[in-house]
Amino acid sequence: MEIHAGMVPNTSRLQNNIEQLSTLINPSKPGWTRRPFTEEYDSGRRWLTGQMQDAGLTVEIDAASNLIGVLPGSDPSLAPIMIGSHTDTVTGGGRFDGIIGVLAGIEIARVLQESGLKLRHTLQIVDFTAEEPSEFGLSTIGSRGMVGNLTEAMLELRDDTGLQLADAINRQGGDVSRLHAEIRKPGEVALYLELHIEQGPVLEQSGHRLGAVLGIVGIHRYRVQITGAPNHAGTTPMTLRNDALAGFCEIGLAFERHCLHYAKDAVGTIGKMNNEPNASNVVPGLVRFDLEIRSLDHKISEAVYSAFAAEAAEIAARRGLQISLESLSKSDAVIVKEKVLEKVLSACNSVAPAICLPSGAGHDANQLASIAPIGMIFVPSKDGRSHCPEEWTEYQDVAAGTQALGQALLLFDEEDFSRWEDA
Amino acid sequence: MEIHAGMVPNTSRLQNNIEQLSTLINPSKPGWTRRPFTEEYDSGRRWLTGQMQDAGLTVEIDAASNLIGVLPGSDPSLAPIMIGSHTDTVTGGGRFDGIIGVLAGIEIARVLQESGLKLRHTLQIVDFTAEEPSEFGLSTIGSRGMVGNLTEAMLELRDDTGLQLADAINRQGGDVSRLHAEIRKPGEVALYLELHIEQGPVLEQSGHRLGAVLGIVGIHRYRVQITGAPNHAGTTPMTLRNDALAGFCEIGLAFERHCLHYAKDAVGTIGKMNNEPNASNVVPGLVRFDLEIRSLDHKISEAVYSAFAAEAAEIAARRGLQISLESLSKSDAVIVKEKVLEKVLSACNSVAPAICLPSGAGHDANQLASIAPIGMIFVPSKDGRSHCPEEWTEYQDVAAGTQALGQALLLFDEEDFSRWEDA
Repeated sequence: MEIHAGMVPNTSRLQNNIEQLSTLINPSKPGWTRRPFTEEYDSGRRWLTGQMQDAGLTVEIDAASNLIGVLPGSDPSLAPIMIGSHTDTVTGGGRFDGIIGVLAGIEIARVLQESGLKLRHTLQIVDFTAEEPSEFGLSTIGSRGMVGNLTEAMLELRDDTGLQLADAINRQGGDVSRLHAEIRKPGEVALYLELHIEQGPVLEQSGHRLGAVLGIVGIHRYRVQITGAPNHAGTTPMTLRNDALAGFCEIGLAFERHCLHYAKDAVGTIGKMNNEPNASNVVPGLVRFDLEIRSLDHKISEAVYSAFAAEAAEIAARRGLQISLESLSKSDAVIVKEKVLEKVLSACNSVAPAICLPSGAGHDANQLASIAPIGMIFVPSKDGRSHCPEEWTEYQDVAAGTQALGQALLLFDEEDFSRWEDA
Repeated sequence: MEIHAGMVPNTSRLQNNIEQLSTLINPSKPGWTRRPFTEEYDSGRRWLTGQMQDAGLTVEIDAASNLIGVLPGSDPSLAPIMIGSHTDTVTGGGRFDGIIGVLAGIEIARVLQESGLKLRHTLQIVDFTAEEPSEFGLSTIGSRGMVGNLTEAMLELRDDTGLQLADAINRQGGDVSRLHAEIRKPGEVALYLELHIEQGPVLEQSGHRLGAVLGIVGIHRYRVQITGAPNHAGTTPMTLRNDALAGFCEIGLAFERHCLHYAKDAVGTIGKMNNEPNASNVVPGLVRFDLEIRSLDHKISEAVYSAFAAEAAEIAARRGLQISLESLSKSDAVIVKEKVLEKVLSACNSVAPAICLPSGAGHDANQLASIAPIGMIFVPSKDGRSHCPEEWTEYQDVAAGTQALGQALLLFDEEDFSRWEDA
């Protein structure tokens, strides 16, 4: 595929916009913090609105408070193609996560206007509200709302100040009374595309600037409790102990080994654990930990878990420990349709050599996948880092990703999505 | 050795006294809580004073606020023999730890009076102030003060309310201005004896009611830090991780293995550890933990540590982790002199079959050992438990321990301690 001559983003304009948006933050927080439903988030939204209008987009806010810039297509009978991501950050986060996806969309709209290219499909550029874990204990709030995955119970969630999520959405310009009426149904969005930083080290370490995303992994989470006896660390002989922490060590190593066995297709992590009573002179009596397994293939996640759970039970029994394992949650993987992946990879390769890789993190695309085919493009994260002030992607890589996204958009604009079978 | 017919404690009186003292607690706290320098501690001291007086003892409070009951011996030229322990408890503690040592001393004084037995040596029964870790961050406060191990810096320690330790001691009836003048020097106490619950499972599991203590283990404490990289749990492939918690698991297991290798002569524990950032979706980047090794033989403690530290460094290097190990403290073991151990064991065996065992916990005896030979007797702890409401020792075992302590006292009363060489 050749690069479409008209689809060349302006790297310095992209850089300038990323830098401008990175000034609209909470200066009392570490890094580049722009939490949703805050003053700095409002400032960012006002600035984004101006950018969208400059780019010739008609700006609206939907019932879920998502900010949407619309560029009408030549054929109003076609469902729109949507490009989106988010501009909220975690506390102490960076300048790229989510942000480049929204700014790439706006840049593409500008380039389309400047080059006089006209799409058949209407293009919607969306800044989804509150993608990161919010103060309400919920993430991807805006994209959930758009596709009908925001339940009444979720809307009643409160933050630490007592504010209800429903009120926060209304204050942000949304209207929860219209949420149900505005839900986008399957077929009402032709395609959802998202450019995002990888947040991992694979592109950087393999020397690629672009990645076509195979899908978004499903996450299986479990809570494990190991109970021993909290005996005196001085008076209990080694051979008469039921040390929950020593048991955790052996069980944790077993988990790592089972994950390594499936390292090509899954990752597994024990990220959170607590030791009790956690006193230097008491043999630990209780360890609780959460583990998660992520894979595109839920059978692999199940295989890792089954092998682990069996071995953990053996280890506990041998050590005179009680163990309980409880499933916390299982989210389904999102698999990018083959005909989307082919075009996205081809668009990427037209800009720079690309690879296919899974997304190990969740995105707004997870929500949109319930109503539309999705495609995603990754650009490299320096040292694989994100959700920290050091998060960094070279501006020429952001531009390459934007160009690939634009190329993909032009390719997909030629598709007749109404003839895609729902799979 | 035959049991001295005159030295038979009254089991129901002992039981009654343990039960009475267990009513003088803070009812708003769990278990049987009597923290030092509190109202309930004062009530306990008043009750103890009455008991000592009833037993014919002259009661005094020394500069460090220890409560001392004195029974003059027939030869005033001899240094006194001291029997002591403590009546403060940990929060949520039990009814036996420390308490039985003081009440056994008072019971022995009663039996001596009742049976008309007269000792050559003056007998001092001591309730040491604040043996357990106190609100001032210090333990064995009273016994430290008695032997000159209470420094100016310690006296300036403050509790959460801002109270200085010096003032707390004075309010408890002590007089810190006289601390220095009253310090007991080597030779000024002929012998220190203490009856205590084992706080471990060895007597119970071996089916013995009495134990002669070989010594009190030295404790070597270290702080270890393992530094990895706090990467995203979804986006970081298994083979590109530097997981500090997985490293901890392997290092913790290695520590346990090295301790088990010396299980006859040492115990080692990782009791306290913290994982950061401790979020279920972040690969752990930092684990800090404290480890301790206890043994009567510091060479064994050093051997465990050296073997562990070398292996830990290998594991960290292989996993791309940084590790740092820092020595926090090393306390010397107290070894019971052979001629004390022989008589204590013989006294125990005259009451019930006994074994020798180390004390894995510290006691007021640690402090007294700096000025006098010490001997200790253990009675069983149900399920090896202590420092909890379930702490339990059968009353007939308390009585057996008291009888053995009394027998030992009679044996030692015949000794000429002035001829013991200082070792």
